[in-house]
Amino acid sequence: MTSLADHSLITPELRDELHELYRHLHANPELSMQEHRTAALITEHMERLGCDTSPCGGTGVVAVLRNGDGPVVAFRADTDALPVAEDTGLDYASTARGRLPDGTEVPVMHACGHDLHITSAIGAASVLAAARDRWSGTVVFLFQPGEETSEGAAAMVADGLWTRAPHPEVVLGQHVYPFRAGEVRTASGPAMAMADSWRVTVHGRGGHGSQPQDTIDPVVLAAHMVVRIQSIVSREVPPLQPAVVTIGSFHAGLKENIIPATAVFTVNVRSLDDAVRDRVLDALRRVIAAEAQASGAPEPEVEELSTFPLLRNDPAATERVTGALTRVLGADRVRDTEPLLGSEDFGHLPGAIGVPGVYWFFGGMPDEVVDGDAPVPTNHSPFFAPVVEPTLTTGVTAAYTAIIAHLGMPATVE
Amino acid sequence: MTSLADHSLITPELRDELHELYRHLHANPELSMQEHRTAALITEHMERLGCDTSPCGGTGVVAVLRNGDGPVVAFRADTDALPVAEDTGLDYASTARGRLPDGTEVPVMHACGHDLHITSAIGAASVLAAARDRWSGTVVFLFQPGEETSEGAAAMVADGLWTRAPHPEVVLGQHVYPFRAGEVRTASGPAMAMADSWRVTVHGRGGHGSQPQDTIDPVVLAAHMVVRIQSIVSREVPPLQPAVVTIGSFHAGLKENIIPATAVFTVNVRSLDDAVRDRVLDALRRVIAAEAQASGAPEPEVEELSTFPLLRNDPAATERVTGALTRVLGADRVRDTEPLLGSEDFGHLPGAIGVPGVYWFFGGMPDEVVDGDAPVPTNHSPFFAPVVEPTLTTGVTAAYTAIIAHLGMPATVE
Amino acid sequence: MTSLADHSLITPELRDELHELYRHLHANPELSMQEHRTAALITEHMERLGCDTSPCGGTGVVAVLRNGDGPVVAFRADTDALPVAEDTGLDYASTARGRLPDGTEVPVMHACGHDLHITSAIGAASVLAAARDRWSGTVVFLFQPGEETSEGAAAMVADGLWTRAPHPEVVLGQHVYPFRAGEVRTASGPAMAMADSWRVTVHGRGGHGSQPQDTIDPVVLAAHMVVRIQSIVSREVPPLQPAVVTIGSFHAGLKENIIPATAVFTVNVRSLDDAVRDRVLDALRRVIAAEAQASGAPEPEVEELSTFPLLRNDPAATERVTGALTRVLGADRVRDTEPLLGSEDFGHLPGAIGVPGVYWFFGGMPDEVVDGDAPVPTNHSPFFAPVVEPTLTTGVTAAYTAIIAHLGMPATVE
Amino acid sequence: MTSLADHSLITPELRDELHELYRHLHANPELSMQEHRTAALITEHMERLGCDTSPCGGTGVVAVLRNGDGPVVAFRADTDALPVAEDTGLDYASTARGRLPDGTEVPVMHACGHDLHITSAIGAASVLAAARDRWSGTVVFLFQPGEETSEGAAAMVADGLWTRAPHPEVVLGQHVYPFRAGEVRTASGPAMAMADSWRVTVHGRGGHGSQPQDTIDPVVLAAHMVVRIQSIVSREVPPLQPAVVTIGSFHAGLKENIIPATAVFTVNVRSLDDAVRDRVLDALRRVIAAEAQASGAPEPEVEELSTFPLLRNDPAATERVTGALTRVLGADRVRDTEPLLGSEDFGHLPGAIGVPGVYWFFGGMPDEVVDGDAPVPTNHSPFFAPVVEPTLTTGVTAAYTAIIAHLGMPATVE
Repeated sequence: MTSLADHSLITPELRDELHELYRHLHANPELSMQEHRTAALITEHMERLGCDTSPCGGTGVVAVLRNGDGPVVAFRADTDALPVAEDTGLDYASTARGRLPDGTEVPVMHACGHDLHITSAIGAASVLAAARDRWSGTVVFLFQPGEETSEGAAAMVADGLWTRAPHPEVVLGQHVYPFRAGEVRTASGPAMAMADSWRVTVHGRGGHGSQPQDTIDPVVLAAHMVVRIQSIVSREVPPLQPAVVTIGSFHAGLKENIIPATAVFTVNVRSLDDAVRDRVLDALRRVIAAEAQASGAPEPEVEELSTFPLLRNDPAATERVTGALTRVLGADRVRDTEPLLGSEDFGHLPGAIGVPGVYWFFGGMPDEVVDGDAPVPTNHSPFFAPVVEPTLTTGVTAAYTAIIAHLGMPATVE
Repeated sequence: MTSLADHSLITPELRDELHELYRHLHANPELSMQEHRTAALITEHMERLGCDTSPCGGTGVVAVLRNGDGPVVAFRADTDALPVAEDTGLDYASTARGRLPDGTEVPVMHACGHDLHITSAIGAASVLAAARDRWSGTVVFLFQPGEETSEGAAAMVADGLWTRAPHPEVVLGQHVYPFRAGEVRTASGPAMAMADSWRVTVHGRGGHGSQPQDTIDPVVLAAHMVVRIQSIVSREVPPLQPAVVTIGSFHAGLKENIIPATAVFTVNVRSLDDAVRDRVLDALRRVIAAEAQASGAPEPEVEELSTFPLLRNDPAATERVTGALTRVLGADRVRDTEPLLGSEDFGHLPGAIGVPGVYWFFGGMPDEVVDGDAPVPTNHSPFFAPVVEPTLTTGVTAAYTAIIAHLGMPATVE
Repeated sequence: MTSLADHSLITPELRDELHELYRHLHANPELSMQEHRTAALITEHMERLGCDTSPCGGTGVVAVLRNGDGPVVAFRADTDALPVAEDTGLDYASTARGRLPDGTEVPVMHACGHDLHITSAIGAASVLAAARDRWSGTVVFLFQPGEETSEGAAAMVADGLWTRAPHPEVVLGQHVYPFRAGEVRTASGPAMAMADSWRVTVHGRGGHGSQPQDTIDPVVLAAHMVVRIQSIVSREVPPLQPAVVTIGSFHAGLKENIIPATAVFTVNVRSLDDAVRDRVLDALRRVIAAEAQASGAPEPEVEELSTFPLLRNDPAATERVTGALTRVLGADRVRDTEPLLGSEDFGHLPGAIGVPGVYWFFGGMPDEVVDGDAPVPTNHSPFFAPVVEPTLTTGVTAAYTAIIAHLGMPATVE
Repeated sequence: MTSLADHSLITPELRDELHELYRHLHANPELSMQEHRTAALITEHMERLGCDTSPCGGTGVVAVLRNGDGPVVAFRADTDALPVAEDTGLDYASTARGRLPDGTEVPVMHACGHDLHITSAIGAASVLAAARDRWSGTVVFLFQPGEETSEGAAAMVADGLWTRAPHPEVVLGQHVYPFRAGEVRTASGPAMAMADSWRVTVHGRGGHGSQPQDTIDPVVLAAHMVVRIQSIVSREVPPLQPAVVTIGSFHAGLKENIIPATAVFTVNVRSLDDAVRDRVLDALRRVIAAEAQASGAPEPEVEELSTFPLLRNDPAATERVTGALTRVLGADRVRDTEPLLGSEDFGHLPGAIGVPGVYWFFGGMPDEVVDGDAPVPTNHSPFFAPVVEPTLTTGVTAAYTAIIAHLGMPATVE
């Protein structure tokens, strides 16, 4: 079974098919929990490969590839896209639009690379389906919606995922990142940050743009909050412990000569440590309340949008994955990484049944970008454009290699 | 002709009709330069009164009431509404929605009282039409669109207003303000402020909410601009010379975990003096450019949205209006006012042909609001709710009184 | 007695003597309530002119010039200098140093022109003493210390000024300002602003510069206060009503690698209206308290340093002064002025006995400065350098002209 | 020679003598490069112990303890104190005052614990001198002045330290820190941060507190800089890489009613990585220049006050020290530590001759402080009060243990 680790399993025909699928997904992104056409496409592909599929958690899909006795291994790919106006200039760039839950129409883009995750999972399933004689056991593919809003994993579990799907020994997953395409990075223990998101509604008192004295200006107030919040990371967080506080959106007012009544912003907090998280969230509440008082405004409303837990990789399972990837890809293409400050709801899936999880990263940037002088566009940027190869082949290879490593065929991978 | 100054000219039937018209207009507001249904309604009413009407400047209407030889006097009423979500609780409150030029769907409200201006003008025309035997001359009613964007007066002039309509000796106009209903205020010389509005597009570099170091955060940058701009009025403007700088809107980002690529805000500057205006605008440019440099960001785009000139009342014509209003309404109901910091494009209309203009203010607030402890909701506030009477009767009376005063019938007003 | 209004009364010898006196005073400034050598010099000069002198209010001097029956008129000159490092480059520039009440050693400069006030008063006394045959009555010269700290007028009154000195019919005074030398400006009614000064002590928690997380950084906190305070004038004060909020000093920390425990700043508020004053002071307290809360710091200490009342000129007495000055100096050299936002404790002196007061302004800048492009250095600037002539002759002339006008010799001034 | 590792070497008499010395030093602190009385006291003690002493680098002292053939080992203790007003309430608290280089008189305190460093070094020398029969070789004690200003180590090297003193095989040193007394922490490789300090002089234009429009307010400008600088750490530094930017002092203005001409602040930057350091310093320059432009002010002056290099411990020498300390103090009292963000010029001393250096930390806080709820006062805090024991015994023991370990007597320590 050496051939399973052999790239030749990804035949030219499969590769062409995956490229086409990827470009299609990229051009047709859907917002979180609205991945209807994406789910239909996934279902069609996975059924064609011989999987039993079922919808789960709204727009999620569970696809089970059974191949005789043996271990059960789960592999998760997330499927949603983001409200970003694509600016990559790619010929398959997205021009799609969608609606946020509040009804706002927005552009949509696979700015986080979930299209690569879907394609890699389908690619790995294709390889496994084409080589059924070389392995035995069960692979449960979890196509999860709503990762960007931390809704999807919880929704699948709440929808009875683990009462219907066979329980795996391990749940695997991966994410494309803006490092060199062809490379893979793994982390044992903490791998991705906790994240908390809030929506803050600042209440002022609206009025005529020429009469500020009769208003409480919520734009100036919220701007003071944004500025004041910077001092939390700069002065309150222990410098050796990472924390990020991002104000991802700020909206107020419709016309230049009207002082609006409210301003709304969202804030997103990342940390790797509970004490740091508590300290930052406490400081945020303190600053928001105090700045409102400084303006003589009422207490702002703070609404929790989402919470992502720390993503913690199981050390033993991680070691097995890292070992297998090193053997297949070569030691120069597999590295350790420090924890990343991105966040994931992946951990809910193994966590709900107490099995280990392993989550790793694969690179998506061509050499000329990595080695160039310009800043590398990150996930969520309008310019985020992973190069199709060797990114996709690496994603497919890493996926089936890690699956096989947990199907318990150490000899055959040699 | 004493009766012209006699309130009995506003018959109970006329009053009922005007109240109904006002409530209808209030419930059906239209955004600037989109006042199609409003224009149709005005045309219908004015034609019924015997006026010659013609569209002008897009959604503007010119209505000429001819009544034999005599002076020509023009009276202007503006017709547009604002993107404000009405929160007055009135039973005829607006629930209308419209689209800004950029396509954004917004709520619409007559938050500036232009519905009262239209109704008062139609009321004055009704009084004049009903008493044709008591005056002679020509009254040109100018129903102007797009005052809030400073587009409408210029559009009417550009559309040939003064090549088609008879040239008046004076152009009159009025605005409802949040002082005591039943009262009128006039200003000789400077009456309303210069205003300049800009849209500022702040370019950062977008990216993942967890990786600020790879981005230039435009939310933090624009917030620093908003805060820094406060120091212009507080430290650079001579304290005895009024200036207001309002940031009426601020929009950035669509999702809490994405650092957006841009932030956009609008800024509105009021002043009564050219040197102050120059100083504030220079300081704004300086602060905006420098703050971008402080972030290592490119020079922001600054786009001029509108410019309102100083509204300057002709002293002789103002004296005539003030005298007539005092005789008709009583000295206790007519006051001088300092210039207001609101702005108007009214001045373009007389200015285009070099004739005098007079613009005054009438109150719209009931006693209990004026004498109460709560802040009085100003024009442009979601709570701006002029009381129908005595506001409307005062608006109608002031309009026909000022018109008559310029039709040259001093004796008859006694 | 035309000659009293004749500049020839200021003989070349007197002029030389005054110039020398002025340069000496300028080179030897003393801080508020420490004007010991200045008082001795004044006493010596005034005694030589035949005045009865007595110390009053610490370092103040009362000098009474009696000349038979007639009205009693008081003229006040303030005598203190400021902690400013002179940077005028004048050959008689100050290099003096002094100590603030807290013991800090500071440079001292007559940066407010009180040296001109003293010299003008002595010059006017010299003219009056040299022409005793031409007037009768009593002139009470009040050389007041501690004007800059609002202590001196109160100290003189508390020290029994009006139980010892004859009560005048009017108290007169004047101030040099950075407008054209040779000109005089008068204001009827409000002439100079209310001013309130506070010292704010911001308590943080000190620590090592590398461990901000274990401290509450008072430098960052106080800087946030300074920035936040700017929004009071820009957003809360009615634009047609002047207000100024200046943070004149800010002191924190002794070493770059230590986060200090406290920061101290002083704030100075100017206004012309009680409601504006109340609003600004309330807003200041609100902002200071709330910003401390935003940092999790204790409530800062706010200590009142001084309060200056509105300086209000008596209309009738002002008219008399303005008329006399116009006749003597010519109409082109005497103007009305709006109220100035500088402040004065002058009003305590007439106020304590309920007599009228008149306070006017005389220019100190040469034509090339007034007409040049560079900003004109104001009072309190290290570059404030009034030109000796025609400033001093104008100051002397204005002083004795106003005194004579109130001694009741209208005919003689013709 | 087991006894060298035996605490009984610190006899009750020696302990009493060291306690007395420590309290004397604590009560008599001297500022950097002014440690005259401290140097005299050290010289006296070290000569009494049989050392050859010589002054070096101004107020530094080199003391050589020779004892036959064998290795040469150097041990460094720093001697200067800080401008901090002690607020510990200790009966031996400092009330001393000193003068900064600019002449300002300030309170002085051993707020960084250098008094413990001196006493520990003298204690170790005492132990070694009392047990000459048990070791052979040469110990070079380096009492270094001016650590807090990063001047002293360089001054000693420049003064010919290594041309006069014997070259050691290793230079050792230690620092008291606010962790549990009795414990020791060591770091292999990077141990203390790079630090850069600047003085920034912000030039505005001074003037009267009532006329901000004629000035450029340097207080508001510098406050904007302080606030804007917070965004460097919060948005520009990679969150996994530590950086601290502290503004340790801010001084402007002498009087509340004068807008001063300048403001001066100092800024201190800590980092562990050259790229982070470069990025922060670049950002600081960018922000400072841009904020001045935002005010229309001239480019501020930026003056470098000091630079501390990264303190890097030699891994082999550190392992030897850690092993010896573990054997003597017990494994539960010796821990690894991450690098600290404090800074040291210690590295210049071994660096100048290319020999290894080892620098470790010993705790100073009693259990009730470490285990209590209140924040632990850090070095440089006015409340920094190490408990005398077991702090001092641990400091002495760690010093002679590390020295002995490098004198090459592994067998004897067993």
